[in-house]
Amino acid sequence: MGDSLLKCVEGRDDEIIEQCICDVARTVQKSLDIPLESIRIVVEEVSKNRFAVGDKLKSEV
Amino acid sequence: MGDSLLKCVEGRDDEIIEQCICDVARTVQKSLDIPLESIRIVVEEVSKNRFAVGDKLKSEV
Amino acid sequence: MGDSLLKCVEGRDDEIIEQCICDVARTVQKSLDIPLESIRIVVEEVSKNRFAVGDKLKSEV
Amino acid sequence: MGDSLLKCVEGRDDEIIEQCICDVARTVQKSLDIPLESIRIVVEEVSKNRFAVGDKLKSEV
Amino acid sequence: MGDSLLKCVEGRDDEIIEQCICDVARTVQKSLDIPLESIRIVVEEVSKNRFAVGDKLKSEV
Amino acid sequence: MGDSLLKCVEGRDDEIIEQCICDVARTVQKSLDIPLESIRIVVEEVSKNRFAVGDKLKSEV
Repeated sequence: MGDSLLKCVEGRDDEIIEQCICDVARTVQKSLDIPLESIRIVVEEVSKNRFAVGDKLKSEV
Repeated sequence: MGDSLLKCVEGRDDEIIEQCICDVARTVQKSLDIPLESIRIVVEEVSKNRFAVGDKLKSEV
Repeated sequence: MGDSLLKCVEGRDDEIIEQCICDVARTVQKSLDIPLESIRIVVEEVSKNRFAVGDKLKSEV
Repeated sequence: MGDSLLKCVEGRDDEIIEQCICDVARTVQKSLDIPLESIRIVVEEVSKNRFAVGDKLKSEV
Repeated sequence: MGDSLLKCVEGRDDEIIEQCICDVARTVQKSLDIPLESIRIVVEEVSKNRFAVGDKLKSEV
Repeated sequence: MGDSLLKCVEGRDDEIIEQCICDVARTVQKSLDIPLESIRIVVEEVSKNRFAVGDKLKSEV
């Protein structure tokens, strides 16, 4: 088991996200020394006006 | 309290998801012996190119 | 670190959600006495037919 | 894919939790019509003073 | 529905966490204009060596 | 923003987990081309009898 949930701000090309998923999977596989098949990666993209650092929305900066 | 967050791949009919929510709620109610009203079920559907087993995206298989 | 993930039913105006994010950030900042910059707030909105209390979907009530 | 994260209040016997995990897995398998092997269930137990309905901690009621 | 999952670094007194839970519940109640009873707050505390900003563990800084 | 929540089975040495956190942070930084400081990694370890693939607990296999 090496389940990773990655959240990032929306707006990237599919290829970027897809490559990131593969890269994280391989990193977890090496770091934890577990089979690739036991790893699951999910990416959730968040709207800029649904995410804030402190009280500053990402859509404002 | 018996909160369940269920993630599945997108693309199913609403009726399937809605029935699944009810089924899981009743299963948790029986297994944990808690009132139905204390149970919350949320389903999140994930795009096939935002989910991978190992480095294989669901959209590729 | 004071990361808050807030889930609510979809259908509210953006201003309501955005104000809620700011309010929660400031509340966490005061309660935990941490810098605003160390706080992250994400809001996820859930469809009424993807959320149930017990076996009653929100879309049914 | 049928990943379920179940949160409940701590204090139950292991057998109860373990049976619940199996029951939820089989329910999801039937409801979504997916192979058992594609399903993952995780249970997280929450302390009574780390969970509240409204502003009432579970440890107070 | 106004479910909030708050993660913070472990090491605070119970009273601080409990007060924070109540404060967040009331903030969400006011901001979203929903009944207190429909709100659930869970706090999860994370060890300093299980959390990093970038590649710096909280336990190192 | 590049928040990653990684869940794995408990029982690994701290150094393994800590190195994994750093490796994932750097992988996300490169893949998404974002500053390291905007990335947060949290690892949660799950007991073998709180996690199942299908209806088989990790503690049974």
